Amino acid sequence: MSQKRILMVVLDGGGDRPVPEFGGKTPLEAAKTPNLDALASMGINGLLHPIGPGIRAGSDTAHLSLFGYDPYEVYTGRGPFEAAGAGVMGRKGDVAFRCNFATVNDEGEVTDRRAGRIREGTEMLASALDGMEYNGIKMTVKAGTEHRAILLLHGDNLSPAVSDVDPHEAGAHFLRCEPLDDSPEARRTAEAVNYFVEESWHILRNHEVNLRRDRDGKAPANILLPRGAGMFPDIEEFGRRYRLRAAAITGVTLITGIARLLGMNVIEVEGATGGIDSDFRAKLTAAVSAMDKNHFVFVNLKAPDIAGHDGDAGLKKEIFERIDTAFSVVVDSMKERDDIILAVTSDHSTPVSVMDHSGDPVPLIIAGDGVRPDDVAEFGERAAMTGGLGHLNGRDLMPELLNLSGRAEKFGA
Amino acid sequence: MSQKRILMVVLDGGGDRPVPEFGGKTPLEAAKTPNLDALASMGINGLLHPIGPGIRAGSDTAHLSLFGYDPYEVYTGRGPFEAAGAGVMGRKGDVAFRCNFATVNDEGEVTDRRAGRIREGTEMLASALDGMEYNGIKMTVKAGTEHRAILLLHGDNLSPAVSDVDPHEAGAHFLRCEPLDDSPEARRTAEAVNYFVEESWHILRNHEVNLRRDRDGKAPANILLPRGAGMFPDIEEFGRRYRLRAAAITGVTLITGIARLLGMNVIEVEGATGGIDSDFRAKLTAAVSAMDKNHFVFVNLKAPDIAGHDGDAGLKKEIFERIDTAFSVVVDSMKERDDIILAVTSDHSTPVSVMDHSGDPVPLIIAGDGVRPDDVAEFGERAAMTGGLGHLNGRDLMPELLNLSGRAEKFGA
Repeated sequence: MSQKRILMVVLDGGGDRPVPEFGGKTPLEAAKTPNLDALASMGINGLLHPIGPGIRAGSDTAHLSLFGYDPYEVYTGRGPFEAAGAGVMGRKGDVAFRCNFATVNDEGEVTDRRAGRIREGTEMLASALDGMEYNGIKMTVKAGTEHRAILLLHGDNLSPAVSDVDPHEAGAHFLRCEPLDDSPEARRTAEAVNYFVEESWHILRNHEVNLRRDRDGKAPANILLPRGAGMFPDIEEFGRRYRLRAAAITGVTLITGIARLLGMNVIEVEGATGGIDSDFRAKLTAAVSAMDKNHFVFVNLKAPDIAGHDGDAGLKKEIFERIDTAFSVVVDSMKERDDIILAVTSDHSTPVSVMDHSGDPVPLIIAGDGVRPDDVAEFGERAAMTGGLGHLNGRDLMPELLNLSGRAEKFGA
Repeated sequence: MSQKRILMVVLDGGGDRPVPEFGGKTPLEAAKTPNLDALASMGINGLLHPIGPGIRAGSDTAHLSLFGYDPYEVYTGRGPFEAAGAGVMGRKGDVAFRCNFATVNDEGEVTDRRAGRIREGTEMLASALDGMEYNGIKMTVKAGTEHRAILLLHGDNLSPAVSDVDPHEAGAHFLRCEPLDDSPEARRTAEAVNYFVEESWHILRNHEVNLRRDRDGKAPANILLPRGAGMFPDIEEFGRRYRLRAAAITGVTLITGIARLLGMNVIEVEGATGGIDSDFRAKLTAAVSAMDKNHFVFVNLKAPDIAGHDGDAGLKKEIFERIDTAFSVVVDSMKERDDIILAVTSDHSTPVSVMDHSGDPVPLIIAGDGVRPDDVAEFGERAAMTGGLGHLNGRDLMPELLNLSGRAEKFGA
């Protein structure tokens, strides 16, 4: 059996609910999408429950599920994925935190949770904190975008069961990190975090970046506030699990982090921002090119999710039309070569009426040589209801793709 | 995200198989049901496997599943639900039995398993037995309808692994309760039951109620025969599990017991008998009214199941038509307010050709704001086959309803 290559394109937050201004159609149904419709026509279609029927999936848990992992088993919180996305790779047992550079007054009250949305100098601030040790625990600090940063605790006997230092509102004193269970690991971790936070205050308040911000009348980034502890999971690498070489193209730190933690080769694409202005064509062109050197290429297009969170149906429809135009690259390539099994789907619905993720299923196309086409001729939530794939759970997708690409192992004789 | 309220209506035993006299239609398909058809049209439809494909569900296990619980985990036998339905609430670890007041002769042979279908005086008989103690085990006895009663053993180290005392046939001697495994708990429980049964015989044979029955030529209720031991389960309350206030409207002791054990507020409705003569409109009207004070209202209409057990296709069809007429209350309310997510389904099929529960799936409608409607325009087994929900398991229903009502928690980021 000749082996094919797999292209998985995830339209982030693509699913939706009926929109009155579109006569009850969803943004995807209302959008003109001739290329995606052509792919739906040539392929087999279905509705995919990212995690399970009705379950409201996060982007992280949903992507894990699409990659064939059980998020209930391997998901240990957002921290490690954000850390990996920012380039801080921990090992199994390390604990990662998302942090904000914030402003506190002399009493320790948080006056600005984002330190005036600081954009410059955070790398210097981070490197002033990087490399501390406490009680045998090594601490890595890395600046992220704007006021964001990552703290990684590396050592033995750590626990993610500790509370946030970030009070999540201005005006409150920053919090003590408390153990959330009775384990010595949680106590040990909380102690290290509290040590780190006090040290960060001590070091940052007199840092030259902040003295300059003081002079310029800007809020100083004089403390680092950790939250969302998560332990680095013990995840089998994607490539090893399925015996293939895998690459990822994504503009979102969290999703990049998932790809990195799964050992995928992350391809940087110019113009890929993870925003609504992202260069969809550049990403899909890069994906098609990457099909030569990889057996599996994953692309995440974040824009539909952003429009969904903004509650902007018109924008979401327009984004689908722009994505569809860019999809001509994929349609052309599917015509040219017969060694690609393509999946187009979403990681979850982000209905404009909800302005957040919902548990509604998302449409799925699988196209390529060997697929049994159905009668669906349109890419959309309702069209997919009658598709030949029926209803699938996220974790069923990889087995389907491995099967069609001639990469599935036989179970039994 | 605005939160909606959930109305779940269960047409007990509603599913069926093709009936020759209806030209191969099921009773539900043959019935004229304009209101249910209107709800199917406005909603999304599917086929629901109460527990799993082909699994023949009891009413109790099926309802647990519809409420989102795994019956394989939490179901410990019918006893505790019947007990709770009769108002005898035990604690985790207590063991409940369904009992019959019966008639035995001096040799202990059961001459009438239902003591002449005794209707009067059973409360006095029960109270004569209530409150015994044996070996640190407290015994509660409560009369049920007609010849039925509940025995509850309350104490430490009890086991439901004991055999029935009821021989299930007239002419046989009442049985000794035997431990069904080697545990000291089962032995201890069986001993207590045997003590109780002997005492009940001793006390009841000379009870004034029975002396009067003797004089009137009626069979005396001179012994209480326990059967169907079940341990009170450790079930998380429904309201706590889903963070909502829940109410139940049901005319059946077993279903009332499930609702009570799950901590639902049981609403009594005048005319709600749980029989074929039940006042469906009164129940549905009460349900709609209860939507204001509750986030979740559950209604069980038992009548279709009774017709199914009786093998009476004509009656079952007629019952659906009467139920449909009553459903105008629900249709009107769905038109008036946009904060209700409605589910109409069944707990299992009770085909008239089988005269018992079968494992065939049942139709499901979910309607309300935000639902993606499909093309199904009729409420029925075959119409539901092409619905947009596809096939669901009972345990998927609550996640779907929580999602559509804006009550689902997000898993992940």
